[in-house]
Amino acid sequence: MAGRAELELALKGQGELVRKLKAEKAPEDQITEALAKLLELKAQLGTNDGKQLFVLKTPKGTRDYNPKQMAIREKVFSTIINCFKRHGAETIDTPVFELKETLTGKYGEDSKLIYDLKDQGGELLSLRYDLTVPFARYLAMNKITNIKRYHIAKVYRRDNPAMTRGRYREFYQCDFDIAGQYDPMIPDAECLKIVHEILSELQLGDFLIKVNDRRILDGMFEVCGVPADKFRIICSAVDKMDKMPWEEVKKEMVAEKGLSPDVADKIGEYVQLSGATELADELLQDDKLSQSKVALEGLADMKQLFEYLTFLGIKDRIVFDLSLARGLDYYTGVIYEAVLGPNQAITRMEQNEHCEPTGVGSVAAGGRYDGLVGMFDPKGRKVPCVGVSIGIERIFSMMEQKMETSDQKIRTTETQILVATAQKQLLEERMKLVAELWKYGIKAEITYKKNPKLLNQLQYCEETGIPLVAIIGEQELKDGVVKLRVVSTREEVDVARENLVEEIKKRTYTS
Amino acid sequence: MAGRAELELALKGQGELVRKLKAEKAPEDQITEALAKLLELKAQLGTNDGKQLFVLKTPKGTRDYNPKQMAIREKVFSTIINCFKRHGAETIDTPVFELKETLTGKYGEDSKLIYDLKDQGGELLSLRYDLTVPFARYLAMNKITNIKRYHIAKVYRRDNPAMTRGRYREFYQCDFDIAGQYDPMIPDAECLKIVHEILSELQLGDFLIKVNDRRILDGMFEVCGVPADKFRIICSAVDKMDKMPWEEVKKEMVAEKGLSPDVADKIGEYVQLSGATELADELLQDDKLSQSKVALEGLADMKQLFEYLTFLGIKDRIVFDLSLARGLDYYTGVIYEAVLGPNQAITRMEQNEHCEPTGVGSVAAGGRYDGLVGMFDPKGRKVPCVGVSIGIERIFSMMEQKMETSDQKIRTTETQILVATAQKQLLEERMKLVAELWKYGIKAEITYKKNPKLLNQLQYCEETGIPLVAIIGEQELKDGVVKLRVVSTREEVDVARENLVEEIKKRTYTS
Repeated sequence: MAGRAELELALKGQGELVRKLKAEKAPEDQITEALAKLLELKAQLGTNDGKQLFVLKTPKGTRDYNPKQMAIREKVFSTIINCFKRHGAETIDTPVFELKETLTGKYGEDSKLIYDLKDQGGELLSLRYDLTVPFARYLAMNKITNIKRYHIAKVYRRDNPAMTRGRYREFYQCDFDIAGQYDPMIPDAECLKIVHEILSELQLGDFLIKVNDRRILDGMFEVCGVPADKFRIICSAVDKMDKMPWEEVKKEMVAEKGLSPDVADKIGEYVQLSGATELADELLQDDKLSQSKVALEGLADMKQLFEYLTFLGIKDRIVFDLSLARGLDYYTGVIYEAVLGPNQAITRMEQNEHCEPTGVGSVAAGGRYDGLVGMFDPKGRKVPCVGVSIGIERIFSMMEQKMETSDQKIRTTETQILVATAQKQLLEERMKLVAELWKYGIKAEITYKKNPKLLNQLQYCEETGIPLVAIIGEQELKDGVVKLRVVSTREEVDVARENLVEEIKKRTYTS
Repeated sequence: MAGRAELELALKGQGELVRKLKAEKAPEDQITEALAKLLELKAQLGTNDGKQLFVLKTPKGTRDYNPKQMAIREKVFSTIINCFKRHGAETIDTPVFELKETLTGKYGEDSKLIYDLKDQGGELLSLRYDLTVPFARYLAMNKITNIKRYHIAKVYRRDNPAMTRGRYREFYQCDFDIAGQYDPMIPDAECLKIVHEILSELQLGDFLIKVNDRRILDGMFEVCGVPADKFRIICSAVDKMDKMPWEEVKKEMVAEKGLSPDVADKIGEYVQLSGATELADELLQDDKLSQSKVALEGLADMKQLFEYLTFLGIKDRIVFDLSLARGLDYYTGVIYEAVLGPNQAITRMEQNEHCEPTGVGSVAAGGRYDGLVGMFDPKGRKVPCVGVSIGIERIFSMMEQKMETSDQKIRTTETQILVATAQKQLLEERMKLVAELWKYGIKAEITYKKNPKLLNQLQYCEETGIPLVAIIGEQELKDGVVKLRVVSTREEVDVARENLVEEIKKRTYTS
């Protein structure tokens, strides 16, 4: 550990840095990080009384959820779970860590972002990176050939956090997947329907779902003359078209990835196209593209998909976009991504905020992965799968901001009534009454003081939003009644003790 | 990596071991472990086609939850959460890992069971070991001085798993805690009330809640002449009295811990006592014990606690037991533990299964920890806390066994109706109808085939417990009706399309 003088010097330097960053109006994240470093240094300095000091923080890229945030989180989850259940999904859960080798070779370049556990003897483990690979492992391990399941759980990525924009190292994914050998595009269409329903119900404003197909991309690269070993890197360049103009993407392809300029230009003609069924029709007739068998398969399925989307009444929000090229290695067919904001299709160049390549901007994404389960099966037996993952953290951030700007007060408890008293020595009576209310399922509290002041008890109700107070005193006890007070109106009425439960239920029915 | 021949030899040896273990009727866990090793060896051998093989398993001590287990888990959680909410608790969440130093010095000897993350650059992290320390860190970090919160989440311990008995390395804890400066024993009594309510509602049979106080234990050790530096190790010896007779515990104290036999005998006189208020009264008069100030405080509070338990109507299931001595370092006052089974107080010697020292047997445990938050506060400010943790895994195991032995069929989806057809070429009509039902909140499915057989569709309903089928054909479409079929009775009735939603709701109201 560094000496005190050194640390003090470093501390001073950090202070300057913070001031500088602030003056430059650096992003909030940078300031937060600098402050964290400052605090850490301060803690290392210690205090004179020799007390051990801790850095009081959560790990980088993570956060606690306070009761208000939890209330929002539960609301969002309940909307999503209701939708999954409406579509007949079961749910499963898997451990937070997997054998390291289970994750190996599934994420391409992103593998470096996997959290490993320390080797403390025994198996080598890693924290799960998504819910798709554990799902495929689960199917193969239990020899399940068809299931429709959802899974809501946290996943872990050692990425650069951007917490103000809802990008964390520990974050929730809400996955819905359909596994099984079915007729083409029917489960795929249902996944898109689910995204449509969830984004509509959460009322996040305009959204657009972009659709493409891995086979169309591969066919396009093939007919444009991209060497087979460059498919993946050119694919990830195309993926950047939602945040860069084509000219820059082209530059990257040619200068960095070594593609010849005329091949890049050929790609450019395709990836700037977007539309719907008519575009699929057009491309099916396209001289070059129609030479690729896989592209034709992808285009025929795309046409079929749009027909089903029409039947399901959601065609208007979905666009066939040849520039959509999701990064993960395991996709084999249809891929999709939902983005928020008006007129995304037209103005997406300007929507930087919504269109980070790592998927911060997309609030839902997924696709078909017919080969993943086979990678786990000893005999390589395939189980076709298609699914979607709802990116909930960004939705939380938006809901939080919405709640903060509105005047709406969020209750963090559901307490219906506080059992209170104006007189001393009535703790016994309060305890007996509150126990009676609990017995009948009423959500009730008492304050944890022997002789609390009535004012403090009423104030507690105001603060926490408890709508009713049951006040008892010597007189009420003698008369066998309870004084029921409505906090908002201050109205008070005597209720016979045997009618109290009924009366509370009646008065709090809607809340 | 070992050569093929060597591995094959090892494989053979393992096979023998498995047979031997099975013949000896070894515990299921041992067999499972041996089988896992076998599979691992087999995977290392590889196959002739050069395909890479994975060990298809979850990490040691962990498990997946299948849809049936999830249905049980959700039922148990909902009972517990309802109880916490009935008592006015908010909820929070914290990250699955903490800075390593946050956990340091909180768990005594058990610290060796903490999972560390690999140092991949940046902060040193560990998986949370319980929810109490993260809670204390959260309070100190946010300067919260009073809160009543619950937290349901997974915690991690590198312990020896005994999965058939519900002991895992990844397991859920359901914690309820009250933080704040209140009058003595009022929040403590509510924690016991909560344990009582939850265990009663889950209908797990007889249970007993043992109560003691750290101060009574410390006072007892003091007056019996235990050297101060031996308090903790003698405490952990006392803790074994629920699975060993006193004579053996005494032997451990004398032979292993170096206590003089007459001091041990004095302890023996106390720790074999159990009772209720009258025992507290008796001990308050006890010549020796009354010389300890801390013991007197603990005993006075115990008397007070039993008074409150009487007011709350739960005195019958609670016993003041001087042998209860929970292991964790951070407890400062009342401690408690709930155990299942009839007449635990009398026959607990024989109840090995229920009384593992690491807390497998206890289905709920907790206590007061007034100093923990202060360990995180830079100025050492204390926030008194008391709480309880429900040990849910053992409860899951019991519920699963209960469900398996009963004939009760568990549904894993909530689907109300399947939209089906007996004729070909009606996928469009099925999609349009199911989308209409989803729009009105009906839980509905279609099968993912273009032209499914009616028999297969009906069979799907039988298997998954879907109660209703909406059958459409050319005739129904012409007449503007749907044939509604009740799966259980095979009754069929034509319902006008505009009344369908209403009819489904009416018929599935209770399910």
